[in-house]
Amino acid sequence: MAISGVLRPGYVQVRVLDMKAALEHYRDRIGLDVVATGNDGRVFLKAYDEFDHHSVILREADEPGMDFLAFKVASEGELDVLHEKLLNAGVAVEEIPPGDMPAVGRRLTFIAPTGHRFELFATIGLDPTGPMVNNPELWHAEPRGMRALRFDHCLLYGDDIDGAKALFNDILGFSTTEQVVAPDGTVIATFLSCSTKAHDLALVRHDEKGKLHHISFLLESWNDIGHAADIMSRYEMSVDIGPTRHGITRGQTIYFFDPSGNRNEVFSGGYTFYPDHPVRTWSTDSVGKAIFYYERALNDRFMTVVT
Amino acid sequence: MAISGVLRPGYVQVRVLDMKAALEHYRDRIGLDVVATGNDGRVFLKAYDEFDHHSVILREADEPGMDFLAFKVASEGELDVLHEKLLNAGVAVEEIPPGDMPAVGRRLTFIAPTGHRFELFATIGLDPTGPMVNNPELWHAEPRGMRALRFDHCLLYGDDIDGAKALFNDILGFSTTEQVVAPDGTVIATFLSCSTKAHDLALVRHDEKGKLHHISFLLESWNDIGHAADIMSRYEMSVDIGPTRHGITRGQTIYFFDPSGNRNEVFSGGYTFYPDHPVRTWSTDSVGKAIFYYERALNDRFMTVVT
Amino acid sequence: MAISGVLRPGYVQVRVLDMKAALEHYRDRIGLDVVATGNDGRVFLKAYDEFDHHSVILREADEPGMDFLAFKVASEGELDVLHEKLLNAGVAVEEIPPGDMPAVGRRLTFIAPTGHRFELFATIGLDPTGPMVNNPELWHAEPRGMRALRFDHCLLYGDDIDGAKALFNDILGFSTTEQVVAPDGTVIATFLSCSTKAHDLALVRHDEKGKLHHISFLLESWNDIGHAADIMSRYEMSVDIGPTRHGITRGQTIYFFDPSGNRNEVFSGGYTFYPDHPVRTWSTDSVGKAIFYYERALNDRFMTVVT
Amino acid sequence: MAISGVLRPGYVQVRVLDMKAALEHYRDRIGLDVVATGNDGRVFLKAYDEFDHHSVILREADEPGMDFLAFKVASEGELDVLHEKLLNAGVAVEEIPPGDMPAVGRRLTFIAPTGHRFELFATIGLDPTGPMVNNPELWHAEPRGMRALRFDHCLLYGDDIDGAKALFNDILGFSTTEQVVAPDGTVIATFLSCSTKAHDLALVRHDEKGKLHHISFLLESWNDIGHAADIMSRYEMSVDIGPTRHGITRGQTIYFFDPSGNRNEVFSGGYTFYPDHPVRTWSTDSVGKAIFYYERALNDRFMTVVT
Repeated sequence: MAISGVLRPGYVQVRVLDMKAALEHYRDRIGLDVVATGNDGRVFLKAYDEFDHHSVILREADEPGMDFLAFKVASEGELDVLHEKLLNAGVAVEEIPPGDMPAVGRRLTFIAPTGHRFELFATIGLDPTGPMVNNPELWHAEPRGMRALRFDHCLLYGDDIDGAKALFNDILGFSTTEQVVAPDGTVIATFLSCSTKAHDLALVRHDEKGKLHHISFLLESWNDIGHAADIMSRYEMSVDIGPTRHGITRGQTIYFFDPSGNRNEVFSGGYTFYPDHPVRTWSTDSVGKAIFYYERALNDRFMTVVT
Repeated sequence: MAISGVLRPGYVQVRVLDMKAALEHYRDRIGLDVVATGNDGRVFLKAYDEFDHHSVILREADEPGMDFLAFKVASEGELDVLHEKLLNAGVAVEEIPPGDMPAVGRRLTFIAPTGHRFELFATIGLDPTGPMVNNPELWHAEPRGMRALRFDHCLLYGDDIDGAKALFNDILGFSTTEQVVAPDGTVIATFLSCSTKAHDLALVRHDEKGKLHHISFLLESWNDIGHAADIMSRYEMSVDIGPTRHGITRGQTIYFFDPSGNRNEVFSGGYTFYPDHPVRTWSTDSVGKAIFYYERALNDRFMTVVT
Repeated sequence: MAISGVLRPGYVQVRVLDMKAALEHYRDRIGLDVVATGNDGRVFLKAYDEFDHHSVILREADEPGMDFLAFKVASEGELDVLHEKLLNAGVAVEEIPPGDMPAVGRRLTFIAPTGHRFELFATIGLDPTGPMVNNPELWHAEPRGMRALRFDHCLLYGDDIDGAKALFNDILGFSTTEQVVAPDGTVIATFLSCSTKAHDLALVRHDEKGKLHHISFLLESWNDIGHAADIMSRYEMSVDIGPTRHGITRGQTIYFFDPSGNRNEVFSGGYTFYPDHPVRTWSTDSVGKAIFYYERALNDRFMTVVT
Repeated sequence: MAISGVLRPGYVQVRVLDMKAALEHYRDRIGLDVVATGNDGRVFLKAYDEFDHHSVILREADEPGMDFLAFKVASEGELDVLHEKLLNAGVAVEEIPPGDMPAVGRRLTFIAPTGHRFELFATIGLDPTGPMVNNPELWHAEPRGMRALRFDHCLLYGDDIDGAKALFNDILGFSTTEQVVAPDGTVIATFLSCSTKAHDLALVRHDEKGKLHHISFLLESWNDIGHAADIMSRYEMSVDIGPTRHGITRGQTIYFFDPSGNRNEVFSGGYTFYPDHPVRTWSTDSVGKAIFYYERALNDRFMTVVT
């Protein structure tokens, strides 16, 4: 098997201050579908082009932010292998049995050195609204709102990104695709892939532990980026920056905020990564172009507003 | 390492009747760059967004067609593993030492049950015109012609596609992404991926051995598909069909011919495949929509014109 | 006033065999809005980016085809001037007083030498679902289906296109933008503009009188042409040809049929015409490229299927 | 004739500090073609899709800015009519005989109340690199750089925009398409069309006379806006803002600067205007969204940086 171990980001649980406003945002604007609502009030959503039962979980809470980010593993056997590797590396892993979350099997959970909670799982049910399999049409019904194809990745802020990077590189088999490096060699930001995506997870060095910079949704094209920008202005949504392009990953992008203040991204494009490719490296004096290729300068919000 | 073994199609060697006309086609129209010319007259080209030294080799000959298709393997060690697996399965493998081809290390070559010659290699030099690595710009110079990003895949016609499919699935670790199946269960066409692409290799059942249906180049978007169509008509190039969309892979596409009669494709889009995804299956009564989603019918050329 | 006289195609009345199927087609697929239904069962629709009350009228009948095509004139005074010019040229003009059609003032109607009924009017109410005027947003609600911006033009087939062309050029002030001319000088097809569009009306020489080749809707871009093609295949609509490009006008296009067999077009792009521009002329041996720039050949349907 | 009088912006003469740098900008980046160089060192350029001999004139000078903006009139007879109208209105008109400028006939020139010099002309030669006329292909050679289709319009800053607006509306037959109006009724900005474009000329109230805000070039699509942004960053060009969208005109846009500090725009899209359409009006508290629909706020440069 050419692809094994950790396959992709599976789901992210996000804290929102008001579920009604959050649903208008994630369902009506971004275009996700609600697939289930839990007894505890959590709402499970997925994008129209995802097979798995859900990829975004909204939980009403007093503070915004991310509860956890989960990765899908290729098989239960490989989940066992990763479990053992994590334990051997001294990582405290908790196993959550099936039942707590609809459609998902047993989950392994641990706290990374940056303070973020991650999960690994191998089993999840397929939702019937996912892509067709027999004589498949493009979609069941026309995509809605920003027409998000999938939940794609998260950018997380934390203190010990060297530790987290080592965990993902050495134990979980991620590759580094790009990095921003200070003159003294300190890695300021690192972009990690478990697949051929330019990033499945990104980490930025930051004073606080466990912060969320953004959760990102894939759109089909630059055309859909423009359409998403139209929707954001039409409905007076809070926008951070964009439409623009990242130097890192080459993705075309808009950063914006959900009604609770969690930053979202919609992006398209970017290159295909293979593990034999050179790591792309940015120096701190080019960090403006690295982050925002068109503006060639960071805005203050990029470095300071996290949840 | 999440991705291992065979990584991707590396290079394809194509026979052309007239090198001057072929270069106008592949260099000036498709937009590849010439990186080297061999003492034997072969011309080595690559797309602007490829790291590796070359991905297309043109050889002047009396008949069009494909000499061989080579796959890049993740490491020399994994090349050894695949070598042993092939031998264990009774495949006759020849090792070609470095020297015959610029920038490429040792190569393993074998004939698949469909009669096609394949190669495996792990070592190839990077060409300096490839993507930048330090504070990388989008490109060195503006992409040219159809702005092909990379050589992407081949569709091959042959008799024993069951045998070839087994070789790629069982020995080389490819996944089946889609298939067309006759009412009696015969697989008419199979689409194979060694990565997250919807296809790295496709095989169609055919009476003759060793035939080339098309070699395919990735473009950035539907916009660039339209631009490629403009170029084809402007320069009176021979077009088979398109712009259209495939049901299989969902790729947006044009089939056209090089001056020697080899079919080319430019395509964009299509889904991301993961090995835990269901295999998409088409019945023969839907094969029109499977191949040409917009026309919903095959044209005669699709089944009969090969080189 | 720089633009005067006839401004644009205003509305077209189309005969459909089944109103329910027609509404699914024009409203749900093309994306028009129903603005009114008459006591006589006629349904009035408009595109989301049109100010005027309606641009398409559907009338249930036993045969498909076009009842009439109406042009909006800049003012009631200019309507009087055109009335007199038509009478002076010997054209039989009937005046229809307000009341027969919602929101529209008096209408002048006449039969052109090709046998088609045309109308001229100067007064029509604005529909509140049209473009906003005060601090205008892009649209009230997200465009639907194929996201048609406006009813754009008709291509009509008839016998005496020389006579019709003279009427539109000499009396109504249209410019010829393009034409297809046979070796003996016969004009096979003529494209006429009353504005800066590459065509507001097109006429093709044909044995029968009064035939409709297609009614056309403007889309925003080639991207939306692709999206329209997706919708047509997804919902198994009957397609004639496309996505492709016209050599004439350079428009990017799909021809398809409504459930009654009336040909529709969605198109985007094309150049801006000014009356001081040279007339573009195609010879009959290039007519394939003129009509379908990518295929470079007519299909039989183009010349024979009309309603 | 439906379109008469002033047809369109014909050419603009721009002062540049260094001709070599200016040519790299306008020719290699924006993609204009040099059609002639005068004995006085002026360089005449045009976009690939323009028929007329030139549309941009570069003049080396010590200060940037605009020398004059010229409009093409439909015929010499209509030029005489406009001459008389201007004289009757008390405008001082100078007639420049043919000879001063290649390919152009007699020119009328006058100073508007905002202090800007305008010209009117009816005769200009066609350049052979313009659009083809007989069996026309899309273009002679593939468009270059940002692939500008045409010089489109200027936005000018001046004091007496009421006077200039009256001149263009009442004497030259322009329509007002949009305006920004202060609570006291003062018109802050006015957008004027002599055709079906959303603007052929725009005027903003400003303390100084005769200032240039930007000269604008039309691109084909939002896709080409993104491509233009890529070029700007790749070649480290000075960008003001964008890619974004205007609320006014709905055009998708980037503002950037030539090496002399003159602001340029590339834009695409926007609606089609007809003289019977309502005037779209923005209040000053919505001026952010009017100018930059995505940012919903002006940047300082928009109001202050002019040449």
